[in-house]
Formats: sequence, C-alpha cells, structure tokens
Amino acid sequence: MSASHRELRLIPVSGLGEVAAGTVLGELIAAAVTLAPGDAVCISQKIVSKAEGRLRRLQDVEPSPRARALAERLDKRPELVELILGESRRVVRATGRVLIVETASGLICANAGIDASNMPAEGIVALLPEDPDASARRIRAELDAAAGVRPAVVIADSFGRPWRLGQTEVAIGCAGLEPIDDWRGRADAAGRELSATAIATADQLAAAADLTRTKDAGVPAVVVRGLALDPDAGDGPGAAALLRPAADDLFR
Amino acid sequence: MSASHRELRLIPVSGLGEVAAGTVLGELIAAAVTLAPGDAVCISQKIVSKAEGRLRRLQDVEPSPRARALAERLDKRPELVELILGESRRVVRATGRVLIVETASGLICANAGIDASNMPAEGIVALLPEDPDASARRIRAELDAAAGVRPAVVIADSFGRPWRLGQTEVAIGCAGLEPIDDWRGRADAAGRELSATAIATADQLAAAADLTRTKDAGVPAVVVRGLALDPDAGDGPGAAALLRPAADDLFR
Repeated sequence: MSASHRELRLIPVSGLGEVAAGTVLGELIAAAVTLAPGDAVCISQKIVSKAEGRLRRLQDVEPSPRARALAERLDKRPELVELILGESRRVVRATGRVLIVETASGLICANAGIDASNMPAEGIVALLPEDPDASARRIRAELDAAAGVRPAVVIADSFGRPWRLGQTEVAIGCAGLEPIDDWRGRADAAGRELSATAIATADQLAAAADLTRTKDAGVPAVVVRGLALDPDAGDGPGAAALLRPAADDLFR
Repeated sequence: MSASHRELRLIPVSGLGEVAAGTVLGELIAAAVTLAPGDAVCISQKIVSKAEGRLRRLQDVEPSPRARALAERLDKRPELVELILGESRRVVRATGRVLIVETASGLICANAGIDASNMPAEGIVALLPEDPDASARRIRAELDAAAGVRPAVVIADSFGRPWRLGQTEVAIGCAGLEPIDDWRGRADAAGRELSATAIATADQLAAAADLTRTKDAGVPAVVVRGLALDPDAGDGPGAAALLRPAADDLFR
C-alpha cells in the first residue's frame, strides 16, 4: 500500500442474478462492475457456497444418535446438527441454544457457519466453502481471465464474537493481499517502537464492505477502491493466517 | 438508513495538529473537513484521551504490592500494571505476558486499553476516556456548535480478539447512530425470517475507518459518507449497547 493515508470508496455490486452450482463467479462479477488495478473485491460467502454446490436439503440428512441427542439439548433440528458436526473437528461450546464449533478449516463460529437465510427454498441450508482460501484464489484467477485485472479477493461471512454483541463480517478466505498488516517492531509517528500492533486488514475489509448493504438487499459483492494493492502480488497466505493457533489462545 | 444499498466514501482527515488537554476536538475536526448531513465521523481514541487529559507519566505512579507481584509474573512495568488495575473492575486473564481485563466502563481488552504509542514523550501512556459514550456525545455537540452539522460520532480503538489473530478497530463510544442494526424477526430477500442477525454497525464503521490509515500516519479522524444517517437522530444508547452481558457470555 503506497500512500500513508488514502480516501477509499466502497462500491456495492448488485444485479449479479441467481447463482447456482457451477456458476463462474469471477465472470459474473467482471460483467457487473468495471474493476481497476489495486481494487479489492469482497464477496459474500453465501454466493460462493452456492456456486460450489454447498447447499443441502435438511430432509436428505440422516442424523446420528449423537446429533439427535445434541439437537434435543440445544432445541435445534437434528438434521442441522448432523450437518454442523459433519463440518466440524471439535465442539467448542454447546449450551443454551448455542453451538460453537471449530470447523474442518479451523474457523471458530456458531453452527459451523451453516445457515438458512437467502436460500432458494425452505429446508435448504448453505455450508461454508470447503476451502475458502482456495475459493478466493480460484475467483481471483477467474476475474483475471474475464477482465484482465487481478484484484485482491476476500470471502466474507458474519460471525458473532465473545464479549461483544452483534455480528461483524470477517474474512474466511482471501487471496492477493496480506491478511495481517504487521507493525510490530516498526515505529510510530514519534519514532518510538510500536510494541504489539498487527492489524487484521482482511477482516476490516470484510467489515467495511458490509456497511454498503442491508441484509435483505442482495448485494453479494463489494469493490473496495483506493487501497492501491499490488495487482501483481501473489495470492499470499490466505485467511488461514488469521486463525489463532490453539496453543496461543486463552479462550477456547 | 434509507437506501437498501449504497456507495460509501471513507475520507481521512489529517492536519489536525497537536491535541492537548482541553482541546475542543469538534472545533478542530470541523475546521479540517467539510461535513455533510448524514455523515459519520470516526475518531481515534488516542486524541480523545489526549483532549481529556488522560495521559499519565509512569514515573508518577506508585505501584501497589498487588501490581508489583502481577507485573513480575507478566514481565511488565509495575507502574503500568498499577494503572491497568486502577482502570479495571476485574482481571479476565493474566498469563504469559498478556493481561486482559474488564474496564470500569465494561470493555474487555488487553491492558485496559492503555498504551504508549504516539505519545509526546517516552514513559507517557494514555488511558482510555473515562466514559467514551459521553465523549462521543460531547464531540457531536461540539461539531454541531462549530459546523451546524450533527454527524454520528464513533470513538474507535484497536482490540485483539479470541480465536483470530490481529487487531481490529471497534467502537468504544458512539453517539447519533444505532450501534447494532437488529434484523432479528425481519425477512431475508426471499421473505423468510432471519433467525439471528444483529449487525454491529458501529464496530464495522470503526474497522472501515481504519483501512484509510497506517499506524504511523497521524490520521486521527475519518469521515464515512453515504450512510445517509439521520442527522436529527438522538444520541442513542451508545457503544455500551455493544457490551455482551456477563450472564450471556460463554467466554469470560
């Protein structure tokens, strides 16, 4: 990022039309908005899941005894709990009506990120993309092929958090930007060392993009313009770099 | 917020000059940028603390025995730990070199939000504003008096979080906007009820604003334009509404 401060624009992309399994999202987005070098594109997890065929019909799911027992305790549908457990490597908390898990890809979130909003019909839910960083890399390549521009790509979903109410969007996948801007060891404005400042840029991009939309509005992608990201940057470490290692986590 | 989606601009405000105890921040900001009705202004906690005389010299602090013992265990300066404990009502975690507390105003964060970056001299630290929502209300009134515009005001600081690496800016105080946009009970694009979506808008504003700056750049305020906030809105519940009640928190 070149300038020390910069004006940014958050441009919602609408009118993408219906997304189904096999839809090439990069083509769809490139057709709907003119991208510029240095842009980032923040894409809602939901359309990525749809494009990757990650929708499931609850009536097709056979709950295990473990899922049935947990579902009864949490007052959830057993088929949903079966899907959640299938996407998870560990239950972090199961209490009240809340089921927080660690997903196979290492995210800690409620219900393994599975939800039923904005689905084509009742009883259908969307699982998270299987490998959201791989999804981001693929969409970045699709955008390059379709538009000749390689923006950074962030795949965002809304997660709750401990201690604070309300959800914020976070980056579950990304490509083409450093997810963490690490200032540790660098100097502040007065030349003194900043002791512990590592900024979760990819998460802040996801949160910023969400400001342009309301949940009923169907804005599945948002362009963030003005960051002056390096369009020739490699895909980078992805949002996996935002996952705090368990040994370093005081709250799981 | 009127439109269902909207393009936003994030406009960094620089050139405010030095802020000292007694500085009227609303006047300073109104002189540096032309505000429009419906804007939000996101202000760095650090200048609010400076304006409110919340800087402390570590050499003036007399550590208690409790602070000395904790400081030795955590490898921190006893004077700093004394200040942290003085701002806190409870220690949440003290392990390794990490001290996470619940502040007197209910925030859960490392070191009670006290830090030494961007201070006028070595050995000086900034405490958080004593009542950040009151600070936001006061600055909003100052902006109204100076510019005849009543933008929403968010006071932001960067906090770490469980499970994810890197810090994000959150709203520690706000006035003139609903900190949480609550969609529970409302319908999604397909008309189905959204079960559990309450969006922490004020936190997402804080995170978005941070994208315009780098930590060494001295951008203490950012205007967010395009949200079409109601300039005649009351101050609202403040960022206190973002604090999860302890009884409802699985991770403290």
